[in-house]
Amino acid sequence: MTDENGMQALAKRIQRLEDIEAIKRVKYKYFRCFDTANVAEIADVFTEDVVLTVVGGVYKFELKGRDNYLEMVRDGAHAEMVTQHNGHHPEIDLLSETTASGLWYLNDYVLEFRRKQHIQGTAFYRDTYVKERDGKWRIQRSEFERIWEISDAIEKMPNVTYSYLAQHGHRLPPGEIAPFKRDD
Amino acid sequence: MTDENGMQALAKRIQRLEDIEAIKRVKYKYFRCFDTANVAEIADVFTEDVVLTVVGGVYKFELKGRDNYLEMVRDGAHAEMVTQHNGHHPEIDLLSETTASGLWYLNDYVLEFRRKQHIQGTAFYRDTYVKERDGKWRIQRSEFERIWEISDAIEKMPNVTYSYLAQHGHRLPPGEIAPFKRDD
Amino acid sequence: MTDENGMQALAKRIQRLEDIEAIKRVKYKYFRCFDTANVAEIADVFTEDVVLTVVGGVYKFELKGRDNYLEMVRDGAHAEMVTQHNGHHPEIDLLSETTASGLWYLNDYVLEFRRKQHIQGTAFYRDTYVKERDGKWRIQRSEFERIWEISDAIEKMPNVTYSYLAQHGHRLPPGEIAPFKRDD
Repeated sequence: MTDENGMQALAKRIQRLEDIEAIKRVKYKYFRCFDTANVAEIADVFTEDVVLTVVGGVYKFELKGRDNYLEMVRDGAHAEMVTQHNGHHPEIDLLSETTASGLWYLNDYVLEFRRKQHIQGTAFYRDTYVKERDGKWRIQRSEFERIWEISDAIEKMPNVTYSYLAQHGHRLPPGEIAPFKRDD
Repeated sequence: MTDENGMQALAKRIQRLEDIEAIKRVKYKYFRCFDTANVAEIADVFTEDVVLTVVGGVYKFELKGRDNYLEMVRDGAHAEMVTQHNGHHPEIDLLSETTASGLWYLNDYVLEFRRKQHIQGTAFYRDTYVKERDGKWRIQRSEFERIWEISDAIEKMPNVTYSYLAQHGHRLPPGEIAPFKRDD
Repeated sequence: MTDENGMQALAKRIQRLEDIEAIKRVKYKYFRCFDTANVAEIADVFTEDVVLTVVGGVYKFELKGRDNYLEMVRDGAHAEMVTQHNGHHPEIDLLSETTASGLWYLNDYVLEFRRKQHIQGTAFYRDTYVKERDGKWRIQRSEFERIWEISDAIEKMPNVTYSYLAQHGHRLPPGEIAPFKRDD
């Protein structure tokens, strides 16, 4: 009896560590797929009702639903740019067996050659995760809040010696590109 | 009997993994609070007798005690700058049930607009952690040693499109700013 | 009986978490030693038959065997440069008790003063690890594939205020430096 109780307590602690590792991996996959415009694979990290809010300098908007998020991923990483989003310092808290919160420190670096714009900065992500019926953790809510952002014109084109997105990213139609999304 | 011994061994291994995760989070909180001048929250990551040693290019000093550390945090992240400190590659070793060492690979990027100075580089942190009576791990000793550092004048002011510190950071009094701390 | 079975299952789950942490540390040590030209310590992270493939912009080659890898580390981080390789977002999968795969998101930043060249970019590492007879995980295969790379001439020498490699790195003989390794 005692042992059984003790074992259940241990199993619970192991489960917590496994859940934390699994949640980190959801976000790692998110960044990996985002920067390689991998729309097919990134779909699996969101709940169907996912909500994203972004409070930054050039961007400020709210987005609802997986389909809208996937559209943003496809438009957000196109062929005429290089993009880097790295999530550091994961502070994951289990709130229940199937819900969790996460706080991340983002470092992003983007060169957008169509707009000739360089955007660089840091931000916090405050996420909510849920473990769905299939046992997978997914992002249900993600709040992006800038710490700092610098956005300068690219005056001299850098010497890009390799670009995965040039080969695999979404090709923009000719002409102007839409302005940054700001719901003010 | 056998089971009880086996369970104790398992519990010890779980505890080690939990401690490693807890120690990482102490450092994550440190960086998060440092870059947002969150003096109130960062206080909890230090022991009262914390010692910091810094061996770099523009900085070289030793600092003793939590109060002095908190003062440095407040001065170190003020309103006229953007600052980014990311700790990577945590190599945490438990030395006993209540002591541990940590080795981190820091990447930092700072634009200080009062001095018009850009500092960028990498460093190792060699930390000592202790688990105090309240069950929380804290930093007792932190040795910062540069790998490389570049410090150039900011010749053209960047286009800062967002700054958390401009709103929430310590406001420097008008006039000159103190030189970098170097105890040579 | 039941308890014993249950305990074995728990021990296996703990072992998996310990292995993931151990594998991350192998890679962390790799980056730490690479950027400080620590050839002696880095030797321990490779199997004797390690294979590295690199597909990038300025570099493209395959390398076989630990001795050749160590030679590359010594030449790759010499005294007239600053170099930063950070591995993020570890996605580690245990394939068996003694084999595992790892996917990492690299961010690298290099200033090479002999060639007067700045190289910056991101890449994925797709690694294979094996746990050898001494119980240590090592890198057996590492596939480096660029996401993006920018390689520009250094037109104005930066103000290097600290350099570990200047003191501890391999000193290049006078004269020209070999071109980047490309097996096309």
